[in-house]
Amino acid sequence: MAETLDIDLQAVLDSVLERGLKHMGPGKVAAYIPALARVPAEKLAIAVSCVDGREAFAGDAEEPFSIQSVSKLFTLLMAMKLRDRALWKRVGREPSGNPFNSLVQLEYEKGVPRNPFINAGAHVTTDCIVTDNDDPKQAILEQFRALSGNDSIQFDLEVAASERDHGHWNAAIANFLKANGNLESPVDDVLDAYFHQCSIAMSCRDLARAGLFLSNRGVDVRTGKRIATERKTRRINALMATCGLYDAVGSFAFHVGIPAKSGVGGGIIGVVPGEMTVAVWSPALDANGNSYAGVKMLEAFTNTIGRSIY
Amino acid sequence: MAETLDIDLQAVLDSVLERGLKHMGPGKVAAYIPALARVPAEKLAIAVSCVDGREAFAGDAEEPFSIQSVSKLFTLLMAMKLRDRALWKRVGREPSGNPFNSLVQLEYEKGVPRNPFINAGAHVTTDCIVTDNDDPKQAILEQFRALSGNDSIQFDLEVAASERDHGHWNAAIANFLKANGNLESPVDDVLDAYFHQCSIAMSCRDLARAGLFLSNRGVDVRTGKRIATERKTRRINALMATCGLYDAVGSFAFHVGIPAKSGVGGGIIGVVPGEMTVAVWSPALDANGNSYAGVKMLEAFTNTIGRSIY
Amino acid sequence: MAETLDIDLQAVLDSVLERGLKHMGPGKVAAYIPALARVPAEKLAIAVSCVDGREAFAGDAEEPFSIQSVSKLFTLLMAMKLRDRALWKRVGREPSGNPFNSLVQLEYEKGVPRNPFINAGAHVTTDCIVTDNDDPKQAILEQFRALSGNDSIQFDLEVAASERDHGHWNAAIANFLKANGNLESPVDDVLDAYFHQCSIAMSCRDLARAGLFLSNRGVDVRTGKRIATERKTRRINALMATCGLYDAVGSFAFHVGIPAKSGVGGGIIGVVPGEMTVAVWSPALDANGNSYAGVKMLEAFTNTIGRSIY
Amino acid sequence: MAETLDIDLQAVLDSVLERGLKHMGPGKVAAYIPALARVPAEKLAIAVSCVDGREAFAGDAEEPFSIQSVSKLFTLLMAMKLRDRALWKRVGREPSGNPFNSLVQLEYEKGVPRNPFINAGAHVTTDCIVTDNDDPKQAILEQFRALSGNDSIQFDLEVAASERDHGHWNAAIANFLKANGNLESPVDDVLDAYFHQCSIAMSCRDLARAGLFLSNRGVDVRTGKRIATERKTRRINALMATCGLYDAVGSFAFHVGIPAKSGVGGGIIGVVPGEMTVAVWSPALDANGNSYAGVKMLEAFTNTIGRSIY
Repeated sequence: MAETLDIDLQAVLDSVLERGLKHMGPGKVAAYIPALARVPAEKLAIAVSCVDGREAFAGDAEEPFSIQSVSKLFTLLMAMKLRDRALWKRVGREPSGNPFNSLVQLEYEKGVPRNPFINAGAHVTTDCIVTDNDDPKQAILEQFRALSGNDSIQFDLEVAASERDHGHWNAAIANFLKANGNLESPVDDVLDAYFHQCSIAMSCRDLARAGLFLSNRGVDVRTGKRIATERKTRRINALMATCGLYDAVGSFAFHVGIPAKSGVGGGIIGVVPGEMTVAVWSPALDANGNSYAGVKMLEAFTNTIGRSIY
Repeated sequence: MAETLDIDLQAVLDSVLERGLKHMGPGKVAAYIPALARVPAEKLAIAVSCVDGREAFAGDAEEPFSIQSVSKLFTLLMAMKLRDRALWKRVGREPSGNPFNSLVQLEYEKGVPRNPFINAGAHVTTDCIVTDNDDPKQAILEQFRALSGNDSIQFDLEVAASERDHGHWNAAIANFLKANGNLESPVDDVLDAYFHQCSIAMSCRDLARAGLFLSNRGVDVRTGKRIATERKTRRINALMATCGLYDAVGSFAFHVGIPAKSGVGGGIIGVVPGEMTVAVWSPALDANGNSYAGVKMLEAFTNTIGRSIY
Repeated sequence: MAETLDIDLQAVLDSVLERGLKHMGPGKVAAYIPALARVPAEKLAIAVSCVDGREAFAGDAEEPFSIQSVSKLFTLLMAMKLRDRALWKRVGREPSGNPFNSLVQLEYEKGVPRNPFINAGAHVTTDCIVTDNDDPKQAILEQFRALSGNDSIQFDLEVAASERDHGHWNAAIANFLKANGNLESPVDDVLDAYFHQCSIAMSCRDLARAGLFLSNRGVDVRTGKRIATERKTRRINALMATCGLYDAVGSFAFHVGIPAKSGVGGGIIGVVPGEMTVAVWSPALDANGNSYAGVKMLEAFTNTIGRSIY
Repeated sequence: MAETLDIDLQAVLDSVLERGLKHMGPGKVAAYIPALARVPAEKLAIAVSCVDGREAFAGDAEEPFSIQSVSKLFTLLMAMKLRDRALWKRVGREPSGNPFNSLVQLEYEKGVPRNPFINAGAHVTTDCIVTDNDDPKQAILEQFRALSGNDSIQFDLEVAASERDHGHWNAAIANFLKANGNLESPVDDVLDAYFHQCSIAMSCRDLARAGLFLSNRGVDVRTGKRIATERKTRRINALMATCGLYDAVGSFAFHVGIPAKSGVGGGIIGVVPGEMTVAVWSPALDANGNSYAGVKMLEAFTNTIGRSIY
């Protein structure tokens, strides 16, 4: 990764978007809540923010979408800053390796979620934010606005309400954590904050900018402010690389080769350490819950620019 | 990772070894077979091979030890070359994420091991070698000799016999795979080859040299011969990063930050892509089965030289 | 079981109680809610009601205690009458065979509880009652009063409130069932009815009378009214015999030899088909959650009178 | 069960057989070994032996078939006599409650099988026989001959060889037990005895006679010899009632109402305590591995004669 990246970034994104168009057949838009099921499957976007200040985007990259689990990356950051090492007594750092989802493993491991990127783990990081903030939802929103430099970012209240109305699975998980002594705040408060953070609507441009500090050793490129120490930054990237793609983390590392975090809204954010942050969006998901075309675009992108952390 | 590594490698290794000495208290030498239980707990070694030809080592780095599961890295390479993509129909690429070891998951997933680095997965890669070679044990041995440039590398026949005599767990796994149609060769043949490959005795210097092609994009530094394509090489590194440290892969990524593969003999091999391969040895293991002081030495090493893939 | 039972029932109960006294050391009173933890461990009682009209009791047999899971036997009866065969599409009839409790199995079996006597299964039978009654709690209470002939039976509102305040585990289960489409009524309504039915306070005499129809082929001995068909009655007994004692059903069949249902309040009700119903109470529980001395008293009782269904 | 059974037993069996004929469509003959797959699906038989000496049979009741897991009932008897209480430290008495078969549970419970009727549990009882007998296979055979009064009973050596050749699943289980220290004899010896006992060929008449002591409180009706104590006899019946029908034990209790043990050869033996033993045969199996028409015949039989232990 020594060489300077002297490529025509826009041309790369345009060709990657072409590649994405070819992979829009398979996959299914998340249908567990009506507000998500309505999103048109043909949306397609990619955006890149570089540590040298360059940016480029293609497709629907300025249209906000529901970031869903991508938000877990940012609530993890908040919880790490709030609790430092103590956080890791309440949540693990290992891949879940489990196609059977979460309650089974959570039960065997007595209420300590495997990592902060599965739902149970995100309930724990959100619980830290809820416990330590007077207005946790606003605190979460502010962080997204500050990192992306976009003050118009909002919760999608329709999505949040829909998540709550269909949120029995998450309520089961949160009650289970509470029963095991791993939630400090009341279950309903944690769920409320969780459903709102998942509902945040951001565009690929917003996401690429918000995550740019992750490829810049913790420093916000735009403002020069330090968001996280270099060590914490690398550790967040390591967690993404080993736990960020549900039960496809190994396959993603094998094919794409960079740390990333996905959401069932069809968004994925990826980090090329030292160089750039990339965000893609395509709502139709593969069997693992990751954006089908999104993964294909990221694979095309890293292969085209010749980057892999491995 | 752009900057040249202009450091005093020997001084670094000497200080890392000092650090390892401080972490020799906890941990237990693997005791499941007498031949391993006899290894002195106080052995400590580190060796580095660089793509620019430099080498350095410290401690017991020239003393051979039982590489055990580190061998799975090299039988994976052989199986990938023999079967290419077809291999991945028989073994997955996802972390097992399972502290309960292997048979449970193997049963749920109908005889397809999660990845080539758990025992079940290594039975599958070994089965490929057994099926496709007239003398599979010799073929395995030859590869280790060729990669390390050391023709005196041998099986430790006492260890191999001991593994076999106490190998009921592995026999259970292999019979389970056979019952699920995922072994081509007879169970006893696969077990015989497997127990022998685990018994191979190599030093840290041997190991660092044998794995150097992994940090050199697939090319043998010594001979200039291509061992694997650049893509296959990155993929092997990606598998190590996501599956190489048993149920501590996330924690290792978090703290150490490089792809690695460990064995219950106390050895660990690590790869700094584009720069060097490092091998450590300390027989006492942590609760996850990884060398206790070995992990600490690797953490000190990557922190000292300022390297992390994340 | 052909011979008439011409024994001195009172003498038998007195000697069985003596036996119970000898087994009061081990075991622990349920402590998951304060209201239960306060119950004195030294309470000990046994009561028998015979189909020929005889009754006998010994110890604290007229003192009400929290029947807890023994209530599941009676809500099952109500749900079987309300839904007949359709009930068995929503809940199974097989022992859970699982020391790891319930959510794991529930997840593997997609929200269909193994049987009506595990918590998840009782949520389903309670849901039937909640859905089909305007005042489900009153309906449940009325059945207990009618079957026992004791109109003073009440909910213990302190216990019910305590169950709710510490009911995160049950809330997790109920939300999980709802998420899987296996609750018709709102989660909170089902939980409210469930926590109340568990809180019902009855004495051993009440319980033995309330369950007498189970040993009388479905007919209430006192009133002559049919409570359930003979077939349904035998089936309820069969469910008790195979699923009534948590993960000790086989051991209980082996040692005691009659159908029974236990509760964490320390009560157990047992059925000698064609002859009598017996109820015991001793608050300290064994590792499986069954009354320690209660099981011992039932073993002594069936051995003394020479009864076993096997 | 007080009343004398003054029925026309032959007429009952004839009508039950008619009923069985109507249920021969669904179900599949066990196909895991060729020797079993060849058995004609249209075989149908029932035989009854009474404690008062009466016998009756219908259909193919004198034709020998592979008793398979029904043998576990008799090796359990042998192991209970050899080891008494010590047996229960090596094998449990609880239903497995597990549709996922055995290795999962065995692993969680550290090599102690849930009960003697799952394969793992039968390996343990067979291991006792192998360890304590010079010629274990002959000892097993002798017991079947003695109990049934038929000296021509033989192993079906073709079936035994076929079981061994396709026995990788059982080899996995036995090796797992050995790895957990729960086999005394060598794995191969236990498997050899196990495969042979499963291959024993007996007719329904043989089986009903061999199991008659179970309904006669432990005494052989023909010879007057005591086979087991009354207590042990009831306990074996209790184990059948709670663990004898794979994962359909609750449903079988619910519908049929007597202790029974089934085998994948399509045979089932049932016990009406104090009265009679019944054996049925129909090779096509339901999803749980029990004879489809066999269960239906037993249900018709107990309903017709008005017997249930519950």
